[in-house]
Amino acid sequence: MDNLIDGRAISEQLHAETTQRVFALKSRGVEPKLVFVRVGEDPASKVYVGMKERTSARVGIVSETRVLPETATEDELLAILRELNNDQSVHGILVQAPLPKHISETKIFSTVLPQKDVDGFHPVNVGKLMLGDITGFLPCTPAGVHELLIRSQIKIPGAEVVVLGRGNIVGKPMAAILMQKGKNASATVTICHSQTRDIAGHCRRADIIVAAIGVAEFVKADMVKPGATVIDVGVNRIADPAAKGGSRLVGDVDFARVQPIAGRITPNPGGVGPMTIAMLLQNTVRAAELSSP
Amino acid sequence: MDNLIDGRAISEQLHAETTQRVFALKSRGVEPKLVFVRVGEDPASKVYVGMKERTSARVGIVSETRVLPETATEDELLAILRELNNDQSVHGILVQAPLPKHISETKIFSTVLPQKDVDGFHPVNVGKLMLGDITGFLPCTPAGVHELLIRSQIKIPGAEVVVLGRGNIVGKPMAAILMQKGKNASATVTICHSQTRDIAGHCRRADIIVAAIGVAEFVKADMVKPGATVIDVGVNRIADPAAKGGSRLVGDVDFARVQPIAGRITPNPGGVGPMTIAMLLQNTVRAAELSSP
Repeated sequence: MDNLIDGRAISEQLHAETTQRVFALKSRGVEPKLVFVRVGEDPASKVYVGMKERTSARVGIVSETRVLPETATEDELLAILRELNNDQSVHGILVQAPLPKHISETKIFSTVLPQKDVDGFHPVNVGKLMLGDITGFLPCTPAGVHELLIRSQIKIPGAEVVVLGRGNIVGKPMAAILMQKGKNASATVTICHSQTRDIAGHCRRADIIVAAIGVAEFVKADMVKPGATVIDVGVNRIADPAAKGGSRLVGDVDFARVQPIAGRITPNPGGVGPMTIAMLLQNTVRAAELSSP
Repeated sequence: MDNLIDGRAISEQLHAETTQRVFALKSRGVEPKLVFVRVGEDPASKVYVGMKERTSARVGIVSETRVLPETATEDELLAILRELNNDQSVHGILVQAPLPKHISETKIFSTVLPQKDVDGFHPVNVGKLMLGDITGFLPCTPAGVHELLIRSQIKIPGAEVVVLGRGNIVGKPMAAILMQKGKNASATVTICHSQTRDIAGHCRRADIIVAAIGVAEFVKADMVKPGATVIDVGVNRIADPAAKGGSRLVGDVDFARVQPIAGRITPNPGGVGPMTIAMLLQNTVRAAELSSP
């Protein structure tokens, strides 16, 4: 049954477009550069940064990774960000979350210059997104979901969209993107979360469900309207004695049972994940273009 | 039938609180000051600014109004804002919208220093609102609606809220306020607008309707669930040969027919309107407090 939204294939289209833009920049002497900042040795963070480094290289973006020890102070991290903000050769800065508890993510994310904030987490970029001002940078994961919908010809204007989860990284910006005016937006968006009385009821009336609630296989078959589009943003580690290492990753959607009912659905992995990196690199090349008009 | 949410009475409570805070500031030598900037002679703008001036005076906030001619350039306005940004005696700056078409509101609103942006329109403040960062300033009208709900003991957590309208001044920030985590928020919010397929259906399942869609008497009795709370933000001028001047102002709610069905309802005028000014003055006194800790 081929109702899959192939995030890998769509991310490859985006990488091809980004590669061309990188080539055009280099032709006029601009070398797009992205700097990753990682604090501590969180294994997932190391994997994510490694993937981003390799994909950057593949599209021709130069990257560099600064690694600070877990014990680094907030001031040390701020000093590095100020150095990178002032370095004209750096177009994008990504501070990999999560940060150690003694460092304020709010403070760190708002220290990165908005025009180098390729993660889209600076309040100015979040505010521009909300205001419909397209000069800012969009957060990568919801922007990636948006591209998946557009490139899969899912009709968004007037669609009933239910966003599960109200996090700052996915849920809230996802809702903000889809509710804006415009031919690829203008959905009617409901944001559901832990305090919502009848999540299942909301899901059942949705044309598009974006699941970013962080609960393994939360979206069940009886919560999905036949023909609806289901986008699974979740990454949850669950115990599985049969799996290597005793655990495996699953999404926020009970994929096996939801796939037969859904009109279109993202696999997980291979759906939203690759799009997040694709949007990061698109943001970076755009930052480089804007810095050297 | 007394199910009215009395915005005038609640705004007077807020004014009393603000007056106390102004008094405390003055006792330690800080004179809270708010500057209005008005461009051109739009009659409604003159009325609004006049009301804000008088209410500022009533709570002890010093105000000053700069008036520029309709022909003023964007650069002239920007120069005034820079002067006010740099003036330590000025705590709040309000540029009255709408501005003449040759001036970019986006540019103007993002030039006011975020810490003097008592209107809450700067992207940094909008971004902070969205991110749940309480250090910013909230836009006055949705913040006023929020206060009306809180001070009327309307239960917000888990409530089904329908916001009609997705403007930057009311609809979008209203949704952002009510969807945040917290004991006075955590509602399940749906934002409806011109592209929504079944606005009436959404309204009928709502515990709280906030109407900010800009269509006279849009919310009819059959769109309201019995017992629901109805907040009318609309200000629409409609023709009425019987009225003085041939027209009168009405809200977005068909008040006469909705009042008997609603649990609680704002009159209009006398509901949201007075709260907008109350929140502006509260923002101003807070700006003064933050500037002189």
